[in-house]
Amino acid sequence: MQTWQLPEHIADILPRRARHLEERKQSILALFRLHGYEPVYPPLLEYGDALLTHIDQGLSLKTIRLLDPISGRQLGIRADITPQVARIDAHLLAANQGINRLCYAAPVLHAKPDGFLTTREPFQTGAELYGCADLAADIELIDLMLKSLALVCHEPVMLALGHIGIFRALARAAALDQAQSHSLLAQLQNKDRAAVAALAAEWRLDNIWAQAFAALTELYGGRDVPRHARQRLPQLAAVSQAIDELEQICQSFPEQDLHIDLAEVRVDHYHTGLLYAAYTREHHDAVARGGRYDGLGAYFGRARPATGFSFDLRRFAGELSDGTPQTVAVAHTDLAAARREIERLRGEGVCVVVDYGLPDNGGARQGRLRCENGEWVVRAD
Amino acid sequence: MQTWQLPEHIADILPRRARHLEERKQSILALFRLHGYEPVYPPLLEYGDALLTHIDQGLSLKTIRLLDPISGRQLGIRADITPQVARIDAHLLAANQGINRLCYAAPVLHAKPDGFLTTREPFQTGAELYGCADLAADIELIDLMLKSLALVCHEPVMLALGHIGIFRALARAAALDQAQSHSLLAQLQNKDRAAVAALAAEWRLDNIWAQAFAALTELYGGRDVPRHARQRLPQLAAVSQAIDELEQICQSFPEQDLHIDLAEVRVDHYHTGLLYAAYTREHHDAVARGGRYDGLGAYFGRARPATGFSFDLRRFAGELSDGTPQTVAVAHTDLAAARREIERLRGEGVCVVVDYGLPDNGGARQGRLRCENGEWVVRAD
Repeated sequence: MQTWQLPEHIADILPRRARHLEERKQSILALFRLHGYEPVYPPLLEYGDALLTHIDQGLSLKTIRLLDPISGRQLGIRADITPQVARIDAHLLAANQGINRLCYAAPVLHAKPDGFLTTREPFQTGAELYGCADLAADIELIDLMLKSLALVCHEPVMLALGHIGIFRALARAAALDQAQSHSLLAQLQNKDRAAVAALAAEWRLDNIWAQAFAALTELYGGRDVPRHARQRLPQLAAVSQAIDELEQICQSFPEQDLHIDLAEVRVDHYHTGLLYAAYTREHHDAVARGGRYDGLGAYFGRARPATGFSFDLRRFAGELSDGTPQTVAVAHTDLAAARREIERLRGEGVCVVVDYGLPDNGGARQGRLRCENGEWVVRAD
Repeated sequence: MQTWQLPEHIADILPRRARHLEERKQSILALFRLHGYEPVYPPLLEYGDALLTHIDQGLSLKTIRLLDPISGRQLGIRADITPQVARIDAHLLAANQGINRLCYAAPVLHAKPDGFLTTREPFQTGAELYGCADLAADIELIDLMLKSLALVCHEPVMLALGHIGIFRALARAAALDQAQSHSLLAQLQNKDRAAVAALAAEWRLDNIWAQAFAALTELYGGRDVPRHARQRLPQLAAVSQAIDELEQICQSFPEQDLHIDLAEVRVDHYHTGLLYAAYTREHHDAVARGGRYDGLGAYFGRARPATGFSFDLRRFAGELSDGTPQTVAVAHTDLAAARREIERLRGEGVCVVVDYGLPDNGGARQGRLRCENGEWVVRAD
């Protein structure tokens, strides 16, 4: 075995890419701050239950488990930061009844990768807003998601919208049980109209629900989807409200390239309403995902309205930072005499590197600090 | 069980502390950059062998292991970033024969905490220099360690020096085997002169080595330790060289509060020469540790001179950031009309927060954006 090998779907990030990633991370955290979002650092390690492995099968499959040598209880390495932030809002910031805006940028680990080209160590970066049930909060988060991606991604981004509330309302009205909902969701996700119809027939659903579920497989496209949905779906209050919400989002982003898909249900178990995601041509799946998840806080003792998004910043680590850093060399024999001038240059943002008379791989040499007539000056090398 | 409970020695970092930590991290990475150090992001997850769990018992006990569901091989969560950076220098940057300066700031996990008050999730922050065997490189790293701590720690820092090369040279000359070295090191660390003498008697060491090991338990103190060491230790070439090195470090930091301890051997297995650490009054153990570890790259296919330090940035997360952020509120009903002015303010670094007519926990309200005579202005709330 080669000791330098890394496991599959695991990679180093080397200097120039690492610098690019760190710079992008700092600019995103600054963007979040300018919108009122405060950072939190939840831990990598938690009790399994707190990571929701018992309620969300998708999360459970992704979570690396281990026994705590101290307590003997089962621990997990976080596979998703959002439930941790919901725990912080529900429990640690419980005295705050009002709005909490929280953000983060930190690694998570997945036991298995999401796909062939996907890392097992995403650098999950996101923002969450707690305490406001109004659609305006979702609009704020979608706006922030698009602004964040504009900082890391030079391609145009397509905004994708869905609404799990429509399916849930129909499933409730059609009196589907949990197993039925689960099967139907899987077929909807494949847009398999025949399979959806077969399930409806097998379960002897009323025609109104059979037609509604079949319609969901076809209700995708541009800004006219809400209008078609209003014509083709039963007029349940929750369905109408969800369609209104989708229409309002369309109006709030009039210039944005936008796609709506009412069968798009690739969500975490905890999502409850509007779903939003962003796609680019370069990446085969969504580059960012988010949505409303009003119920999640209840698992930690306080149900709260909640909406938020996140993305894997590592996806954008493919780019190198602009140029190599410019450095000024100083001979190590000059160090003591030039110390004051060196620190002055560094104070002005100049990278000063000690030269030990050996080859040096650190950046492009801009010049060298020399003593001329008793003064230290930077001269071409 | 309470779902919001965290495992022992694991903690959240909440908004004001998290912001402080993030700011300090950014200033330390900027400091590293100004000295020519480029960031790397090694992965959290590696094959166990690559994390040196097979050669370093201390690291092995700290490393969380798991089976890779993909390869079936044993993986570990890193407990120390330094071996990862040595792997990167030895293998991935192998084309570079010259000096590599690398740095990092990222979490590691420990299966068990180092002590009662210690986290299991240190935020390991450090810098490493490869390719220069000269003591000047150690001096560069000690200087950088002290500058880093000055950014996060308001207390005066004491520089502690040791040299594992002295013990190793004596052990070699006295023909100790590995088990004997290990036992003797443990007693030296306790400064237990009687136990050291007993071991020397049991092993029938020549008097010259018995006295030398006994002397190590007493050779600690200030800047005169090298002089005493020269008098009391046998004149082996490696011992004399190590004492010279300690003397040169003393001369390089003439103003620095400084402590030398030749029995200080609380090192990682991979250290080979000069050891440096920093202490403050507030913390019961070293706040930063480093040293020379020339052999480590050989495990990854290329032995390289190496020196570096690291510290747990989380130790300094106890402090809150200065003040709460100043925010300007804008009514969400004004959002569309004021959009241009809002983005202009954010572009100037002003934090503008949408007000949904609900209580808001985000920072101190500095003012409110209002429309007066057709112009958007910030007015007291």
